[in-house]
Amino acid sequence: MKNLFNEGFNDVRERHRLVDLIDSGRLKADVVIKGGKLVNVHSSEIYEADVALSGTRIAIVGEEAKAFASSKTRILNAEGAFLTPGMIDVHYHVAGTYLTMTNLAMSLLARGTTAIASDFYEYGAVAGPKAIEVGLAEALRTPLKVLFNVPLLAYIQNDPFGNSGKVKPEDLMEMLDWDAAVALGEVQPQTGSDPHVRALIEKTTKLRKTVVGHYVGFHGPGVASWLNLGATSDHESVDSEEAFQKVRSGVRIVAREGSAAVDLMNVLRAVTERGLDPRRFVFCTDEVDPLELKALGHMDYKVRKAINIGIPPISAVQMATINAAEYYRVDNDIGSITAGKIADIVMVKDLRDFKAQTVIANGRVVAEGGKYVGRLPQPRFPEFMRRTIHIKPSLKGSDFAVRTRNVKATRAKVNIIKAHEGSLITGRGIATLNVEKGVVLPNPKKDILKVSVIDRYGSNQIGSGFMSGFQLHQGAVAESFAPVPEYLVAIGCSDDEVAFAASKVRDMQGGFVVSADQKVIADFHLPILGLMSEDPLDQVTRTLQRATDAYRSLGCRLKSPFLSLMFTTYPLIPKLKITQGGLVDVDSMKHIDVVVDEKS
Amino acid sequence: MKNLFNEGFNDVRERHRLVDLIDSGRLKADVVIKGGKLVNVHSSEIYEADVALSGTRIAIVGEEAKAFASSKTRILNAEGAFLTPGMIDVHYHVAGTYLTMTNLAMSLLARGTTAIASDFYEYGAVAGPKAIEVGLAEALRTPLKVLFNVPLLAYIQNDPFGNSGKVKPEDLMEMLDWDAAVALGEVQPQTGSDPHVRALIEKTTKLRKTVVGHYVGFHGPGVASWLNLGATSDHESVDSEEAFQKVRSGVRIVAREGSAAVDLMNVLRAVTERGLDPRRFVFCTDEVDPLELKALGHMDYKVRKAINIGIPPISAVQMATINAAEYYRVDNDIGSITAGKIADIVMVKDLRDFKAQTVIANGRVVAEGGKYVGRLPQPRFPEFMRRTIHIKPSLKGSDFAVRTRNVKATRAKVNIIKAHEGSLITGRGIATLNVEKGVVLPNPKKDILKVSVIDRYGSNQIGSGFMSGFQLHQGAVAESFAPVPEYLVAIGCSDDEVAFAASKVRDMQGGFVVSADQKVIADFHLPILGLMSEDPLDQVTRTLQRATDAYRSLGCRLKSPFLSLMFTTYPLIPKLKITQGGLVDVDSMKHIDVVVDEKS
Repeated sequence: MKNLFNEGFNDVRERHRLVDLIDSGRLKADVVIKGGKLVNVHSSEIYEADVALSGTRIAIVGEEAKAFASSKTRILNAEGAFLTPGMIDVHYHVAGTYLTMTNLAMSLLARGTTAIASDFYEYGAVAGPKAIEVGLAEALRTPLKVLFNVPLLAYIQNDPFGNSGKVKPEDLMEMLDWDAAVALGEVQPQTGSDPHVRALIEKTTKLRKTVVGHYVGFHGPGVASWLNLGATSDHESVDSEEAFQKVRSGVRIVAREGSAAVDLMNVLRAVTERGLDPRRFVFCTDEVDPLELKALGHMDYKVRKAINIGIPPISAVQMATINAAEYYRVDNDIGSITAGKIADIVMVKDLRDFKAQTVIANGRVVAEGGKYVGRLPQPRFPEFMRRTIHIKPSLKGSDFAVRTRNVKATRAKVNIIKAHEGSLITGRGIATLNVEKGVVLPNPKKDILKVSVIDRYGSNQIGSGFMSGFQLHQGAVAESFAPVPEYLVAIGCSDDEVAFAASKVRDMQGGFVVSADQKVIADFHLPILGLMSEDPLDQVTRTLQRATDAYRSLGCRLKSPFLSLMFTTYPLIPKLKITQGGLVDVDSMKHIDVVVDEKS
Repeated sequence: MKNLFNEGFNDVRERHRLVDLIDSGRLKADVVIKGGKLVNVHSSEIYEADVALSGTRIAIVGEEAKAFASSKTRILNAEGAFLTPGMIDVHYHVAGTYLTMTNLAMSLLARGTTAIASDFYEYGAVAGPKAIEVGLAEALRTPLKVLFNVPLLAYIQNDPFGNSGKVKPEDLMEMLDWDAAVALGEVQPQTGSDPHVRALIEKTTKLRKTVVGHYVGFHGPGVASWLNLGATSDHESVDSEEAFQKVRSGVRIVAREGSAAVDLMNVLRAVTERGLDPRRFVFCTDEVDPLELKALGHMDYKVRKAINIGIPPISAVQMATINAAEYYRVDNDIGSITAGKIADIVMVKDLRDFKAQTVIANGRVVAEGGKYVGRLPQPRFPEFMRRTIHIKPSLKGSDFAVRTRNVKATRAKVNIIKAHEGSLITGRGIATLNVEKGVVLPNPKKDILKVSVIDRYGSNQIGSGFMSGFQLHQGAVAESFAPVPEYLVAIGCSDDEVAFAASKVRDMQGGFVVSADQKVIADFHLPILGLMSEDPLDQVTRTLQRATDAYRSLGCRLKSPFLSLMFTTYPLIPKLKITQGGLVDVDSMKHIDVVVDEKS
């Protein structure tokens, strides 16, 4: 596995080939980009400069570049365009876009993203280290670079509230040695006492790799504890004050803009209003829905948005490129357009309306006009990555019932999860619901729905509760994507509706189901690990749009309703979450009862 | 040798001890610094903050720090003072100060320098890898941190113009694995075709360590070749234009301020006048004479000077701290005052008149009022590091003669080296000199002196030429410190004077001799490797001052005349140099004759 390696990355021999060609005067460029306005992320300037590429690398930048053109050289006329380095997303959970790495790579490259940092935790949680190898290897056969983060999350999962047990600490210790591994992913404060986590941090540090942090909220002595643990970054800031305090503490700010968390604007106020050095900031997606990826873009969207809220264009490009490369200590290979770097270059007509016109990765043109040039071969997935959902054949409404102690109760006061648009943080509330034969009933009219999580690894454990914010007035929705380890989650207007939708997802062996009156009105098949489609982005968005429309036809108004549903199950982000083991109060890290009080 | 390690460095266990103490509420600080104005190098702010230290680390910064004081806690009152991180010199050839590492550490710590990057190349060139181990181990027993640069220079030396052969590429390959090694030192463009150098760069890159560059001048295709080689920094810039072009190319600028090269002011104009981001700049000494170290200071002097020429104080402190730590990728351990970092802290009363008042290293107060607190035990050097000068017992004036072809010649036109104050770059000129019995005579009246380099490793090879700029009107000066590999160099008014002074240095087994009329008028013993005294800085400066005064009494007006003399022998810095093999024209990398023309 040591050979899992980004093309051209750390490839000192490719550099030496260039040294020999330059020294001997025999250099002939494969590509010369002429007349572009170079966005120099080191000197923070924009000026006209030609760029000569040879093999996967940038050979020469400047006046003399065109002298290395021969009759075989491809000349790219960049007059009127800006040249920026290929963009780097520093934290992106890839399965959340439901695409295979091959299809994802084509979609991201088309938008100017040439590298992503990802941990493939979903792959590991569902099917163990071998699945991570398959996914990473698939990605590394594309021109997209993957700054592999060793997925601490695949081992920690939702402990103590859920774990598939598929990834062991020793697996992670081995992954740290992989060449593509640049970091240990997502060290959270509550993991600080785990000796395995400590051993992983120690090894990461010794290997001079990056310890990526994850800290929701930022106050109290826990902060000092987490800092001492060695975390160097965080992507959970939600406002400028939090970002400001983290910068003071030496933490690199990962400004997140994804489907379920839209923090970029608030976080960047720490720069625009409080004057912090933009060099401490980078961008990430975390999770993005394919509809948004297609409609808004990826890193290009973040750059546009940052500029739009007052970040100077060069600073925004730096956040998307060199800052990210320095953060992962890969700035000797990527992050800027300078001689010796891998040739990952984006041509854009207008910096403020940042849209990739031509994209070069590893020295080759990979996208033009927002389209990937050509097609990458599709992978064949091994059988162990299909048919991963193990749930009993008979699922009934009664499996999902929330019961009162007294079967004669008529009303029950219950804890409810309150979901909010644009945030992974859920609120906590109290509602009073009717009870029939000892079963508490949801009240769709008041936007209080049934929500359940079903273990998909054979235990058939089911946890149920109530939630507001989804506004279904009929039917149910189920999906095989409740992190972590990607259990099934379902929401609906009755226990029977929930049972029906969940059964259908089980039958499909993964995907989304929207049902009404116990009929499927839309579905989205995700046969790979129960997480991914084999269709390309355009097809996926069409299917997902149909499913989303169906979801909305039932009353839901959330922007990314499937994604929002997933994160109501994740008990490491406040405040109240539903798991296969029941409700979890995240602040106290304890299970709590759904029923608070009941009346006959 | 893997255990050669800075105290507290990369020490994840020490961090975990703090995590446990904080998490359990049992933390009691060893030291609390109260009421100081924290210079926050991350947020570029200055504000009041307390700092609690435990063991070697900073446990907590801010409001809550003082809550961790107990009756055993040492309280340091910092009211009215600024707290800056301990300073880091990114490139310092330690033997050039003639001190042992123990004595040097005390001197530097007293001035607020808590870490230096050094390669110990002089140790290696004279006595091989074993001597480097001895020197590095000695340093690591002190509270000073050494960011060990693997000394490429100890292998390359002056090739093809001189090499002691004591350090092999395989020795360097092994050193790269040492824990204290953070970088490969001084990759120069002309070494790019050496397969050993390439293998070293490859290994350095794989280990995610830093490839330190060295590039004199910065134009032509050699630039692209060197950039492709992978060098990430350079300390040879002499003006703002050169620094500017390097920043554009992604090179980190090491602004040098030492005894033989005073570039800081010119280089920093790239920031003050051309608006470059100060985060791309760090400071180094390269070589500093003990007299200057004592009179001016070390990193404190560079910070003062930078502020004085218009660099904002916080930026100057960043250049001396966090920028350096990031450059060597050790910013998880040093470079800022934040929880989890090693407690290296400097208290200064006035940022502009930057003078260390109290210095903390590894959590302990090591200096107060410019004095090291207490004394470090002096090392015992092994015998192989003494008596290292192997030159024949009989050295005569005729060994140093420059001869014409025709013994009847009366006048000769000769190439002369032109030394200049404040620069390592020498000029090249032509002079006409008298010839007697076939021997060309220097002309001290016209400031044209004899200069010779003598191999000290047994070959007795001697190269001689003529030089202006030293202005001796009588006598001679010799020293055992001609880089690299630290041959003897002598300058004088006649061949006999030169022979006398050189003989005396041989007899002393290392040091400086100033002589007149073949009598020693001052000397300075350097018994360790022929390079270092065992005296502390105060004693060394007194001795060296006497020797310098004697040097000046002979007419020399250079600021650091011994250091200037050394560098007239170094054939990797332009333009004309003297070596044991004769004159070297550095531009063409060729030996040239001293005598250009002769007339009878």
